Amino acid sequence: MQCTRVVTGRSFLMKIAVDAMGGDFAPEQIVFGAVRAAKQFDCEIVLVGDEPQIRKVLEREKGWEKLPITIHHTTQVVEMGEHPADAVRQKKDSSVVVAMRLVHEGQCDAVISAGSTGAAVAAAQLVLKRIRGIKRPTIATPIPTPKGATLLLDSGANVDSKPLHLVQSAVMGSIYSELVFGHKQPRVGLLNIGEEDTKGCELVKETYQRLKTVSLLNFVGNAEGRDIPKGTVDVVVCDGFVGNVVLKFGEGLAKTIIRLIKDEIKSAGILTKIGALMIKPALKRLGKRLDVSEYGGAPLLGVNGCCIISHGSSNAKAICNAIRVANDFAKSNVLEVIKETIIKDEALQNDFEETEKI
Amino acid sequence: MQCTRVVTGRSFLMKIAVDAMGGDFAPEQIVFGAVRAAKQFDCEIVLVGDEPQIRKVLEREKGWEKLPITIHHTTQVVEMGEHPADAVRQKKDSSVVVAMRLVHEGQCDAVISAGSTGAAVAAAQLVLKRIRGIKRPTIATPIPTPKGATLLLDSGANVDSKPLHLVQSAVMGSIYSELVFGHKQPRVGLLNIGEEDTKGCELVKETYQRLKTVSLLNFVGNAEGRDIPKGTVDVVVCDGFVGNVVLKFGEGLAKTIIRLIKDEIKSAGILTKIGALMIKPALKRLGKRLDVSEYGGAPLLGVNGCCIISHGSSNAKAICNAIRVANDFAKSNVLEVIKETIIKDEALQNDFEETEKI
Repeated sequence: MQCTRVVTGRSFLMKIAVDAMGGDFAPEQIVFGAVRAAKQFDCEIVLVGDEPQIRKVLEREKGWEKLPITIHHTTQVVEMGEHPADAVRQKKDSSVVVAMRLVHEGQCDAVISAGSTGAAVAAAQLVLKRIRGIKRPTIATPIPTPKGATLLLDSGANVDSKPLHLVQSAVMGSIYSELVFGHKQPRVGLLNIGEEDTKGCELVKETYQRLKTVSLLNFVGNAEGRDIPKGTVDVVVCDGFVGNVVLKFGEGLAKTIIRLIKDEIKSAGILTKIGALMIKPALKRLGKRLDVSEYGGAPLLGVNGCCIISHGSSNAKAICNAIRVANDFAKSNVLEVIKETIIKDEALQNDFEETEKI
Repeated sequence: MQCTRVVTGRSFLMKIAVDAMGGDFAPEQIVFGAVRAAKQFDCEIVLVGDEPQIRKVLEREKGWEKLPITIHHTTQVVEMGEHPADAVRQKKDSSVVVAMRLVHEGQCDAVISAGSTGAAVAAAQLVLKRIRGIKRPTIATPIPTPKGATLLLDSGANVDSKPLHLVQSAVMGSIYSELVFGHKQPRVGLLNIGEEDTKGCELVKETYQRLKTVSLLNFVGNAEGRDIPKGTVDVVVCDGFVGNVVLKFGEGLAKTIIRLIKDEIKSAGILTKIGALMIKPALKRLGKRLDVSEYGGAPLLGVNGCCIISHGSSNAKAICNAIRVANDFAKSNVLEVIKETIIKDEALQNDFEETEKI
């Protein structure tokens, strides 16, 4: 799959399946985001969900019929509170499961969901299946830094990881960073609480020793929490519990700082208020640089298909950006390279103990 | 120990032992911080370290001789790269070990170190010893929030925790929050990646069930990463690996945001530059509210003595504030309450399995 699909001499645009029912502001913001993306990017969009509801929103967008958007009707929705694995197994006609199926069956090239992350990961594993040799899929979230973005993975697909899971995350993150972000030999760091290789919990100490032996990685050693926003590494690897806590903490901290700036300005004198108006454009540019929704979504790596997981609170802009990310992912050959890399190297498929046994 | 020590009818000021050789800017900034504190707070200060070096810095402060500052000479220093436990066992005359000893022997009421955190924790365990029943000490770092501060513990004393360690952290953090920060029935949250009690890794799932049974705690359930900076809980409990990563990530993120604001203003037009000057006082106030050095240091809870761990990069202001924190800690009866609470309740001393065996 490169740039565009070539079938019988004709070239097609990438086709992105969008779970229109997943997310805090679904279907409205999802549909608006899809319309925006269809106008901006060269791709086709399939909105998966309840047709009457989707159509109602679409009709508020004049001339949508001329856009490359179609609707794929489904009758069920996985709700936020449901047990992810049980829900996706039972609700076979839910928007998230059907969207995955469209990719599995080759009708679409990528899928996006802003619904329950657990449900999206479960549906991806159930329908798309894991890549051969991959033990667990991993979510690779781009964290904005002054230099671009650092990929944080796993940022919440799995907890209680073993060293092998982190090694596989490192390999997949490195491939994605190189082929989609264009980083040559991405610097891979292991998230730890100190620089020395003797630092940290058992998981990271073992993972460190293992990562050192993976010659295809540009492993630069331990990275501390402060290295993530600084952008001193391109890929940072950790267990999904730690990654998810860090992600949500960062989100909360950025919001708190902005709220405090507003509070300070509100309670200040007229001079500060005028000053605030004058620096507004600069702050707006900064906001854009730090805005996670600019990155739209995080690829779920390790399954047989391009799958993007978006934030539950995604608005139209975030969904539009997620579609761009899905398009880039589908146009790259990330999946093929992951498959080849894992299959070629037995040490990347087995736990240390298993390898030693062989 | 309440407010002041009463010995044979006379009341004394609290006496704080300060490790003058620990920290990136030691001894200079440590000594300057001590001088500042001696002028501001009602306490005596014992500077522990190499006397000639300390005296040289002190002599740059006119009239220091009239301040309640004394020097306790030591000949050794634990360096940053050394193995903490080995170093404190071998260097019996190091500033950090001797400072702890002064508290153990009752010559001082509290101790501060900005040196290697690992060495300070090891020295505290070696010299002060753990409180009976406490399995591991825990670092309780105050995180600034719009509403005050949330105590994050453990923020780096221990990794690979078990549920009991987190439960003990919760109890000690709650007592400290109530008696030093004045929070009535502090809200205690368990750091997790979702609100439901079925979420998270094995450690937090087990800890959740255990925390529910501790009637003396105001356990409010799971807290997500975003709850920490918001201040929705007063105490948040996690493993030291997670806590330390969060702490350093927050530090890095705040610095990155400030750097980006400066960059944006620098590259902007004259109008923005004037605007920036006009809002400077508001931003300065904000900086003060978010500045971790305002909190000066984090208590190490669970050892037999008041011990404050300061950031390695502490400047004079941070050390001065750490001395204030040490003074408050020493004046409170936190240690006594922790001891009584743990001794009274057998369930707080044993692992689940152990309790079940009994």
